[in-house]
Amino acid sequence: MTKIVIIGGVAGGASAAARARRVSETAEIIMLERGEFVSFANCGLPYHISGEIESRDALLLQTPESFKSRFNVEVRVLNEVIAIDRQAKQLSIRNLVTHETYIESYDKLLLSPGASPIKPPLPGIDSHFVHSLRNIPDMDKVLATLMLHKPKHATVVGGGFIGLEMVEALRHLGLEVSLLELADQVMGPVDLEMANMLHQKLIDNGVDLRLKTGLAAVTECPIPLAEADNTDDYDKPVSPHFHLQLALSDNSTLATDLVILAIGVKPETSLASACGLELGKLGGIRVDDEMRTSDADIYAVGDAIETADFVTGNPTLIPLAGPANRQGRLAADNMLGANIKYRATQGTAICKLFDMAIASTGLNEKTLLKQQIPFEKIYVHTASHASYYPGAHPITLKLLFSPDNGAILGAQAAGLDGVDKRIDVLAVAQRAGMTVYDLADLELTYAPPFGSARDVVNQAGMVAANVLLGDEQICHSHDISAVNAGQVVVDVRNPGELTTAGAIDGAMNIPLPQLRDRLNELPKDKELLVLCQVGLRGHVAYCMLSQHGFKVRNLTGGYKTFQMVNARF
Amino acid sequence: MTKIVIIGGVAGGASAAARARRVSETAEIIMLERGEFVSFANCGLPYHISGEIESRDALLLQTPESFKSRFNVEVRVLNEVIAIDRQAKQLSIRNLVTHETYIESYDKLLLSPGASPIKPPLPGIDSHFVHSLRNIPDMDKVLATLMLHKPKHATVVGGGFIGLEMVEALRHLGLEVSLLELADQVMGPVDLEMANMLHQKLIDNGVDLRLKTGLAAVTECPIPLAEADNTDDYDKPVSPHFHLQLALSDNSTLATDLVILAIGVKPETSLASACGLELGKLGGIRVDDEMRTSDADIYAVGDAIETADFVTGNPTLIPLAGPANRQGRLAADNMLGANIKYRATQGTAICKLFDMAIASTGLNEKTLLKQQIPFEKIYVHTASHASYYPGAHPITLKLLFSPDNGAILGAQAAGLDGVDKRIDVLAVAQRAGMTVYDLADLELTYAPPFGSARDVVNQAGMVAANVLLGDEQICHSHDISAVNAGQVVVDVRNPGELTTAGAIDGAMNIPLPQLRDRLNELPKDKELLVLCQVGLRGHVAYCMLSQHGFKVRNLTGGYKTFQMVNARF
Repeated sequence: MTKIVIIGGVAGGASAAARARRVSETAEIIMLERGEFVSFANCGLPYHISGEIESRDALLLQTPESFKSRFNVEVRVLNEVIAIDRQAKQLSIRNLVTHETYIESYDKLLLSPGASPIKPPLPGIDSHFVHSLRNIPDMDKVLATLMLHKPKHATVVGGGFIGLEMVEALRHLGLEVSLLELADQVMGPVDLEMANMLHQKLIDNGVDLRLKTGLAAVTECPIPLAEADNTDDYDKPVSPHFHLQLALSDNSTLATDLVILAIGVKPETSLASACGLELGKLGGIRVDDEMRTSDADIYAVGDAIETADFVTGNPTLIPLAGPANRQGRLAADNMLGANIKYRATQGTAICKLFDMAIASTGLNEKTLLKQQIPFEKIYVHTASHASYYPGAHPITLKLLFSPDNGAILGAQAAGLDGVDKRIDVLAVAQRAGMTVYDLADLELTYAPPFGSARDVVNQAGMVAANVLLGDEQICHSHDISAVNAGQVVVDVRNPGELTTAGAIDGAMNIPLPQLRDRLNELPKDKELLVLCQVGLRGHVAYCMLSQHGFKVRNLTGGYKTFQMVNARF
Repeated sequence: MTKIVIIGGVAGGASAAARARRVSETAEIIMLERGEFVSFANCGLPYHISGEIESRDALLLQTPESFKSRFNVEVRVLNEVIAIDRQAKQLSIRNLVTHETYIESYDKLLLSPGASPIKPPLPGIDSHFVHSLRNIPDMDKVLATLMLHKPKHATVVGGGFIGLEMVEALRHLGLEVSLLELADQVMGPVDLEMANMLHQKLIDNGVDLRLKTGLAAVTECPIPLAEADNTDDYDKPVSPHFHLQLALSDNSTLATDLVILAIGVKPETSLASACGLELGKLGGIRVDDEMRTSDADIYAVGDAIETADFVTGNPTLIPLAGPANRQGRLAADNMLGANIKYRATQGTAICKLFDMAIASTGLNEKTLLKQQIPFEKIYVHTASHASYYPGAHPITLKLLFSPDNGAILGAQAAGLDGVDKRIDVLAVAQRAGMTVYDLADLELTYAPPFGSARDVVNQAGMVAANVLLGDEQICHSHDISAVNAGQVVVDVRNPGELTTAGAIDGAMNIPLPQLRDRLNELPKDKELLVLCQVGLRGHVAYCMLSQHGFKVRNLTGGYKTFQMVNARF
């Protein structure tokens, strides 16, 4: 009879417990959780704060009682492991209610401690009005602050998943919101030009977006409510109700009532490192592809570990629920004698922001550049379903691929509709080892309400294949911005579009329908950089011009991508 | 200079024309279309009839003028090819306006004639009130009938894509609708139990559904409106305004005002067969994988041809827009010297029906049985996204796979949300040669509004893998219906669920939370057929019971699937 002890009762730990019982009816399974709750929906926290998820109970997926009755798993909440004795295979555990400490032995141990919010040691950071959001008690505290103090202005620090979701939640509740982000973009997994779509969406929704701006210090300014509201001069607005004065990295200050700290998480490795388990370069627990740590009887899963990146094989930290669940299941199998291998992480992720979604899989351009991996990229902007059917919205898709063999390196998409579907399709294609050539041939569901006969992904595959096959030479937005004396920019859109959407200084404008008849206006001795709105007519122009002997390149993604690249926030 | 002539100006033909020009600026390209329109959105026709697509112009994607100005393609509408002289490489063409006949030569000929609606030679079938729906003039006639005659009752004959879309469109317009379908189910690409979800949806939306019922004869009964409305007895309802009396295959009659004939299409092969091109067994034009017919200078694409089925390699007729577009593009390349191969057809398809969608890819169970291909099947019913986030709806997914190696043979899904995404994911996985084992590891986008940490497809993959690995023995609904003396059905749902959802006669009921403590109530000498609502708790029960020495199988898809299988319409 194997005795399995699991440290941590969310995502990975909970999956492992349930799976272990299905695999072995005889195993003794104990789950230790230092918090009050197990198996709660941490991804749902912002949506309960916003009120979109009405019931708090909806977030509690399993309870200690349900684990017991369904899985015969003994769950001990408010029990914190304080040390692991690997030699003796024993844990020292503190009961956080009674404060007693006791010993528990294990045959196999699973570490699923998760990650903890990064909290920089800034002056005032421990203010009662500075919140992180990682678990149910965190959420309850935010809700209590909202209810008791009725803040009018909130500041979210950090523009990752939680930060963006909290910005939306707080706007949904009617608060004024400032968003501070130290980098030049929110949503690190995507590249800057894609993030610019988020920046615009934030501004359109009244968010005070401050990029390249960090939090430096927090000062509590407890202005009594009575004083704040009390003004003898009825012509003047009442004083603001702010309770906090924030010092920012640009030396400015910001008055606010509430801070949400969402600048990221770091793997929770204190137990692991204290007992001498190997950590990786990125600071996560090192595991092999069977989720085994450097101790053969100790496994680890979830946000605390490093896994292999799907594209490079390099270690990576991917604090996401999907991988954690799969790792938990697999670790349970392996603790009970199997040898199932984890198959690397693509980091497929998605974030909703107001009415839009942005998603990605694989590596982004920043990472490819940093790791000096050769790549090519194309952009398409294609309707989410048949454009003649109501509710179609453009999807902007960036596809990164190997110039050698067309392997899919990464993909990013944003839009109002169907973004999840396209990145899912590309994530499967990437995992299957398909190339961009294969994307053109994918046979996807089509009816006018759902897609197009030539879907966004097919389109992207065709464009990328054209580039690889040499059927089209493309240029990028930076080429258009740095046009030289040997080049001419030719805009083949209709004049009306230039007025509406904007135009590029110094570009010739010959609408595509007239192009074949106006070839004589184009210089044969210069390189033509052709563009249209999204790249499609530019491709037709490219084919025409190159066959007529012109040296030509087409701007991938057209003027729309040019605008994304050159937007400044 | 190659002279390319294309017969047929929709989907495949239009794609080929545009692509041919991109490939060759010097080719002469002529597109002949006997109808008035080219490149129209035939998939959108029902939605303009319903009024959901407001503008008729939105359906006209390209015009002869736009083909000329953008692609330098000469489009001749209302020009019908009446004969192909393969020896002379010449076409005889009739101008349908002037009625003149003329000759046109070709170097390469592309046949994209499409398919024509099947119109059985029934008495009265040529009535003015019996419509097909294949093109813009058909649509205009239906619209004119609706406007002029204000029908109150319509009868749709045939429950395929067009039939179902027209049922919805006509209900949308407020008509009473009868749907006649000769088979025992609508939507042939899916299996009966999946189609039963559509049957229920049709009935819920007030449709008079008549399965196993065909149209036998149509009689026009031109009751003058005045007479119909005129009744001296004001207590009686006015006479119905029907204009048609339908005789049905079950010897009943049906009064109706309008008939939409949508019993399917047959490949348009008259030109091809007249000039001696080989046809396939299924009656479509035979082409090789480069879309070349038995004449090396004649290519064919779209609804008129037979292609290879992705799973079996056998010839199949797939009249869908996606494949037609890809074939057109590829045929253009090949006519201009390339040798690109078409990679078989999965038949991925989707249909919207009121608020639900049903989709499929690969082979269905009916076909697998007919072709005697070994298969296993599982069902899951999983929320379209995190169940705690608003708007989640169950997706019913049927996965068919090889019992030998786990190859994906086919998939079908139905539900209110996210059906297209799951079948797209499975279509990519199938095309990539992934197995059900791979499905469990797919890394898909997850945030509460879009999916689950363990997505529907992951779930289906895990269930199928359990079956293949022998980790779970499953049974099917017919086993439950045919339980023998050596078997006991054990329902592990909570008693309240049996009251609400229904129960199986003679089944024991032991709720899962009590099962471990009530093992002594179960017979060791009999086979236990375990079930819950959707199969998940049944799996937990299976694991528990089998490890305690019971002989047990779990009902895949649970009671919900049992109900789908046993529904009668």
